[in-house]
Amino acid sequence: MFESLETDVRRLHNQLRSNQSTLSVAESCTGGMIGAAVTSVPGSSDVFAGGAITYSNRMKHSVLGVEENTLETHGAVSEPVVREMASGATETFGTDYAVGVSGIAGPEGGSVEKPVGLVHFGFVSPNGSRHERQVFDGHRFDVRFSSVEFAIEVLCDLSKNGRAV
Amino acid sequence: MFESLETDVRRLHNQLRSNQSTLSVAESCTGGMIGAAVTSVPGSSDVFAGGAITYSNRMKHSVLGVEENTLETHGAVSEPVVREMASGATETFGTDYAVGVSGIAGPEGGSVEKPVGLVHFGFVSPNGSRHERQVFDGHRFDVRFSSVEFAIEVLCDLSKNGRAV
Repeated sequence: MFESLETDVRRLHNQLRSNQSTLSVAESCTGGMIGAAVTSVPGSSDVFAGGAITYSNRMKHSVLGVEENTLETHGAVSEPVVREMASGATETFGTDYAVGVSGIAGPEGGSVEKPVGLVHFGFVSPNGSRHERQVFDGHRFDVRFSSVEFAIEVLCDLSKNGRAV
Repeated sequence: MFESLETDVRRLHNQLRSNQSTLSVAESCTGGMIGAAVTSVPGSSDVFAGGAITYSNRMKHSVLGVEENTLETHGAVSEPVVREMASGATETFGTDYAVGVSGIAGPEGGSVEKPVGLVHFGFVSPNGSRHERQVFDGHRFDVRFSSVEFAIEVLCDLSKNGRAV
């Protein structure tokens, strides 16, 4: 299922392990797929603590601590929300790295401003935080799978230089 | 990715929707795959609140409220732990239904008493709670995928007769 990601997932594990770092995930539109990909290879428990699948706004607030005001002002699919999701995951799961993902996987729910395929990513790492915005092509599955690939690529990039001092 | 499960997932959604019920998941060995399967079809936000991927014992305790004593006495892969995981998910996510899953996906970590492929499932529903123990054949992916199929089948079964009074 995640065969095409195996090289990147193993690389991510190795880098986190050599940094003695841990990872958690905060997933909305991907619904658990990033966690599933990260745990698809053995030995993931060394570096992966867990994650939250927060499909509703209420859960983004109550489980990950995303401010209600941020959700109301910017909407669930926005830079401020994914940044707070990632930050909340590091606190809830006590990890060094986290990714927060929220997007519009479709086929419903798109608008001119926020089309189907739009996905926001927030990353927290010992080297600082990062935000990425992508618009992926394709159907629901493609948007979700592309999001998983992208999240893992960026996590590999963020963890490749080791733990910041 | 979850094409073979689509009929069951749609059936689960329809049943939950007609019961006006909601679902959450508490995943260990499946690492997010049940959440990913449940959200693989559109409209899942009506019935799916979210879930917790609790890979470590510490997270099973801190996020889902599984008692430390239960984990120490019975081990993470046990009936009491998956029952508490499911129960914790209904509380954390405020849902009517939940499934908690913990098992040994392999290839490492098996023993005579708890072999690779052993998976415990705890279910909470308005009609009561339920425990299932399965030993699945195959490699890591097969064990995890069989666990997702099984969890969704049982959730379909539990929700088919509507909400209990």
